[in-house]
Amino acid sequence: MSTQGKVIRCKAAVLWKPGAPLAIEEIEVAPPKAKEVRIKIVATGICGTDVKRMDIEYFSQFCPIIMGHEGTGIVESVGEEVSTVRTGDKVIILCIPQCGECNTCLNSKNNICTAVRLSEKHLASDGTSRITCKGKLVHQFIATGTFSEYTVLKEISVAKIDEGAPLEKVCIIGCGFATGYGAAINSAKVTPGSTCAVFGLGGVGLSVIIGCKAAGAARIIAVDINKDKFAKARTVGATFCVDPRDLEKPIEGFFLDMLNGGADFCFEVTGNTETVATALGSCHKDHGVCVIIGSVGSWNSTINISSHLFFSGRTLKASVLGGWRT
Amino acid sequence: MSTQGKVIRCKAAVLWKPGAPLAIEEIEVAPPKAKEVRIKIVATGICGTDVKRMDIEYFSQFCPIIMGHEGTGIVESVGEEVSTVRTGDKVIILCIPQCGECNTCLNSKNNICTAVRLSEKHLASDGTSRITCKGKLVHQFIATGTFSEYTVLKEISVAKIDEGAPLEKVCIIGCGFATGYGAAINSAKVTPGSTCAVFGLGGVGLSVIIGCKAAGAARIIAVDINKDKFAKARTVGATFCVDPRDLEKPIEGFFLDMLNGGADFCFEVTGNTETVATALGSCHKDHGVCVIIGSVGSWNSTINISSHLFFSGRTLKASVLGGWRT
Repeated sequence: MSTQGKVIRCKAAVLWKPGAPLAIEEIEVAPPKAKEVRIKIVATGICGTDVKRMDIEYFSQFCPIIMGHEGTGIVESVGEEVSTVRTGDKVIILCIPQCGECNTCLNSKNNICTAVRLSEKHLASDGTSRITCKGKLVHQFIATGTFSEYTVLKEISVAKIDEGAPLEKVCIIGCGFATGYGAAINSAKVTPGSTCAVFGLGGVGLSVIIGCKAAGAARIIAVDINKDKFAKARTVGATFCVDPRDLEKPIEGFFLDMLNGGADFCFEVTGNTETVATALGSCHKDHGVCVIIGSVGSWNSTINISSHLFFSGRTLKASVLGGWRT
Repeated sequence: MSTQGKVIRCKAAVLWKPGAPLAIEEIEVAPPKAKEVRIKIVATGICGTDVKRMDIEYFSQFCPIIMGHEGTGIVESVGEEVSTVRTGDKVIILCIPQCGECNTCLNSKNNICTAVRLSEKHLASDGTSRITCKGKLVHQFIATGTFSEYTVLKEISVAKIDEGAPLEKVCIIGCGFATGYGAAINSAKVTPGSTCAVFGLGGVGLSVIIGCKAAGAARIIAVDINKDKFAKARTVGATFCVDPRDLEKPIEGFFLDMLNGGADFCFEVTGNTETVATALGSCHKDHGVCVIIGSVGSWNSTINISSHLFFSGRTLKASVLGGWRT
């Protein structure tokens, strides 16, 4: 029996207040409006950004909310004026969509569409939501909300993918892989023959390594305090793995000696504010580029950096979704 | 009577210990060795870097020392194997010379020759000094030392300039002007039509404004807490001047509103660590580039930056001598 045009009752993991556990609730998902699509979610990743935000008190204004922003699914139905996908299409969800019309999309150097601007209100296209739970409007994290069986998104928030794509695997292209790989390729612009150091070997860190390798880096040093991650890091391209706790000197000094002044490119992928200064200090003092990937600390944590690290030419830059325009 | 080949006795301002006033002393300047030149200094600038270093206890290991690194002069005599200048030539002193042979000079993206590396030992080419005072070897700040009537430098540390050049004016091209102008042109790569904000309107800040204007910036906002500097800033290209203390909100918020998300490029030229975060926060949150010019704070001051400033794509980079290869 077709669900098209009808409200769908299904399950979702709902955050009722910051710090609370996610509650599996029955929700109601209304049909899509114009330029919207309703998606049956098949797979979702859990990103550090989901987890961090869930604990921040500031987030209470958006509760109840469905978290999750990297997912894949199948189009259940489409609203009016939708032309790029149709019912039954496999899609990947784009957590930073591009409207294609605003000044940023048309002219800018960055990948954050002004019109949607990370969907900071965590609501769908028209400032409302198609989702309710126990009579309350439910927000969707950065206007996605993939921790749900169904969701309604803007048409520009989904991209059709190949029929044969394994949805449970490609879902991480929606954020994690794109973020790491793009940080190397787009944000750092890793150069052939260069030396790279990646701090933090989770899924994003491994994706950075893959990006560095694809860009032709000659040496890729993987850094983590969990040695269990080294085997996977080597598999994807790390040429050397190191646990800073095994070193006799701070890792900045180790890189200074080992890499003749420091790495050309460093990537902070641990999410810790302290590691930002370590990664910056580990890159070459005159031309090193250090890329901060995603959010470090909580929203208003302080990063402390010794001023001499900036004396002779280092660059510290942020990268969001790997600089990709989705 | 020619001084060639003889020791010259002359005056210099000597720093005997950090924090002490400069003492005008009689010094002895030996003739230049191979690939060295002896220069009669005609004019010198006083750079913030001179002044800051003079007070740092760490500097005691280099005392006695002659400070000063932006100057002009006339070649008094040359050592063997010198081919680019001869006695009587007007020259500008290059505080970051390029050896032309090291890996940095031949291949790198940065402008700091590995072989001379800011001449961190503050000694001339062969690890000694041609200058003595009261029987002691005298160091030369970054192997220059322009607060002196005569000095001996590497041949690569001077460049011949036009006979008609007014030495008392062009001496600041050796550091101050090059640093500011180059920070806009080379380090930030200011783009035509962009918006720029310059924090600090000393000589370097004014040079940044000139660089931004030359690069085609559409709006150049000059920021200082001394309004007396605004007239000169306007003369060289500022389109708007503001004293942050006159604003009802923090200047970051002012720029956010005035410049539709922030300036494309911000320049920190005050030398204060606190202003780094202010300038970074004043540039566009997604694509803004903030350039730190020269040293901020003392050598090991801490720069504190809220982590959210790095969430969506800002870049913070250092610039030394405006990125120029001398």
